[in-house]
Amino acid sequence: MTNADPRFSANPVLIVGSMAFDDLDLPSGRARDVVGGSATYAAIAASLYTAARVVGVVGHDFPDDTIALLESRGVDVSGIERASGKTFRWAGRYAANLASRETLDTQLNVFADFRPKLPEHFRDSKIVLLGNIHPSLQLEVLAQMRGPELVVADTMNFWISGERKTLLEVLAKVDALVVNDEELRQLAEDHNLKRCARAVLKMGPRRLVVKRGDAGAMLFDADGVFFAPAYPLENEMDPTGAGDSFAGAVLGNLARAQRFDHAAFRQALLAGATVASFCVEGVGTTELAKVTAQSLALRVRELMQLLDVNQL
Amino acid sequence: MTNADPRFSANPVLIVGSMAFDDLDLPSGRARDVVGGSATYAAIAASLYTAARVVGVVGHDFPDDTIALLESRGVDVSGIERASGKTFRWAGRYAANLASRETLDTQLNVFADFRPKLPEHFRDSKIVLLGNIHPSLQLEVLAQMRGPELVVADTMNFWISGERKTLLEVLAKVDALVVNDEELRQLAEDHNLKRCARAVLKMGPRRLVVKRGDAGAMLFDADGVFFAPAYPLENEMDPTGAGDSFAGAVLGNLARAQRFDHAAFRQALLAGATVASFCVEGVGTTELAKVTAQSLALRVRELMQLLDVNQL
Repeated sequence: MTNADPRFSANPVLIVGSMAFDDLDLPSGRARDVVGGSATYAAIAASLYTAARVVGVVGHDFPDDTIALLESRGVDVSGIERASGKTFRWAGRYAANLASRETLDTQLNVFADFRPKLPEHFRDSKIVLLGNIHPSLQLEVLAQMRGPELVVADTMNFWISGERKTLLEVLAKVDALVVNDEELRQLAEDHNLKRCARAVLKMGPRRLVVKRGDAGAMLFDADGVFFAPAYPLENEMDPTGAGDSFAGAVLGNLARAQRFDHAAFRQALLAGATVASFCVEGVGTTELAKVTAQSLALRVRELMQLLDVNQL
Repeated sequence: MTNADPRFSANPVLIVGSMAFDDLDLPSGRARDVVGGSATYAAIAASLYTAARVVGVVGHDFPDDTIALLESRGVDVSGIERASGKTFRWAGRYAANLASRETLDTQLNVFADFRPKLPEHFRDSKIVLLGNIHPSLQLEVLAQMRGPELVVADTMNFWISGERKTLLEVLAKVDALVVNDEELRQLAEDHNLKRCARAVLKMGPRRLVVKRGDAGAMLFDADGVFFAPAYPLENEMDPTGAGDSFAGAVLGNLARAQRFDHAAFRQALLAGATVASFCVEGVGTTELAKVTAQSLALRVRELMQLLDVNQL
C-alpha cells in the first residue's frame, strides 16, 4: 500500500467497540471461535473507503493474525489493548431463515473491565463511531476527544432498557444514531417508524439511520427520508456483524467523501448496504475481508439500479 | 367527468375479485359492515389512472351507493352481479402494531356460488387483474377473454396450499404475479426472496411483484430487480385492502402508460405503493376514495425523493 491509496488521503475514522470470539449455530452448521466483535467488523468495512483507528480490548487468546490483517488494511491498531485474560465471547443461534437469533451465552471476560483509552494521536480524529458498548464508556470516549466533526453512535436493547438515562446523555452529544428497527421502537416506545424517528431526532442526533435487515435501511433527518434497499442475496450464510459492517462502511464512505450532509449520507447508506451484503455471504468476516474495490463498485452499481426509477 | 378525462383515453382494466363487508377489530376500535373486497379496492385504485371494469358478485344488502361511487369514477359496473342472499363477509383482528392480523370469521354467502360471467364488451379487455379468487375461477375468466395483452394474478395462502395444481395452471397463463412475501415463500417453498423469485418466474409469469408491507415492494423479472419503498406514514389506521389497492394502481398505471415493459413496471410499483399508502390512512376505502390527482402526484413525488440517490 502506498500513499497514493485514497484511504490515506481521507480523514481516518475512529472506531470504538468490541473485539470478540463468536460461537455461531447457523443453518449451515456450527462455527466455533469465529473472530468477530463490532469494532472488528466495522474496521474492516471502513477500511474499504478510508483509514481507520480502532480502540478496543482483546485477551491473550485473540489471534495476532487478525490484528495483522487490520494493519495490512490501513487500520491503526495502537488503540487495541491486549489484557491478561480471555477475549469477550458471544454465542448465538440463528433461526433457519436467519431472520432472528437468540443469545445462548455471553462471557464478557476482558471486556468486563474495559475502559477505552485513546492514544494521544487518536484524540483529534474528526469522525468517530461509538460502537455498541456501555453508554458511559461512549461518554468517556467523547470526553477524550478534541472537537470531532462527526460522532455516530450505535447501541442495543440492553442499554436502551437498562441504561436509558446515560444513553440519553450520549444521544444529546452525537450527530447521528445508527440502530435497527427493533432498537428504534424500543428507544422511542412506539411502533410507527416515522413517529419513532421524529421522537429520536428530538433526543439529540440530527440524523437517524435505521437498519432493517433484508428490508434495507432508512435515513431520517430534517432534510428528508431516504430508503436504501438491501442487496438481494441468494445465499445468505451468517448475518453476524452485518450491522457493524454497515455502520463501518457508512462512516468510511462519509470520511472518504469528506462531506457529512444529507446527500452524503444517502450515498453512505448505499455503501453500508452493499458492504453489509458481502458480510452476510460468509461466516464471520470471511467474505467481508475478501471484498475488493472492483467487487464493491460493481455491487454498489447493481444496488443503485434497484432504485433507479428510470432504469430501462 | 368528460371525455377529456385521461382515464377514458387509456385501455380499461378488467378487475375480477371479491366485493365484501368487512368487520374489523383495529387498534383504533371496531368497525362493522365496512364495504370492502379485493375488486372494490382495486377498482377505486385503478380508476385514479384509467377506466376500469369490474366482475364480481354482491348480495341484496350491498349498498347502491358504493356501486354508484364506482360508476362516478369511470368504473363499468355491468359485470357486477346482484345475487339473492347476503354479501361475502370477512371478519379480522389486527395486532396493535398493525403488522399482523388473524381471520375471525369468513362467510362466503353469495360468493360461494360465484361464477364470473364477463359481459360481451368486457371480453376484449387488454389488461386484466385476476384478483384473489379460486384459481379455477381465474381460469374461467381467462377462457372468456379474447387475447388479453397483460394478465396479472393475485392469490393467497389458502389457494397455494389447497389448490396448488390449479394455481400452477393459472401461473402458466399469466404475465405477472402479485403476492406478498409470505405467499411468495409458501409458493416457492423457500425463505430466500431472490431464490423464491427465480423459482416463481420458472412457473410461468414473466414478472413477479412482491408486496412487503411497510418494507415496500419489489419487482423481479429477466430485466432486473426494482425496489419501491413504502411511503412512510405517521398515522396508519387500517391495512385492509392495501394490497388490492396496490395491485389496482399498478395495473391502472400500466394501462395509462400503455406500456408493459420493465421500466413501466418500475413506475407502476411506485404508483401502487403510493395509492396503497393512502388506503392505509383510513378505515376501509375512506381515504382511498378521497385521493385526488393533486394529492396523488404530490405523494408520488415524495416517494421518488425517498429513493433519489442524488437528492440534495
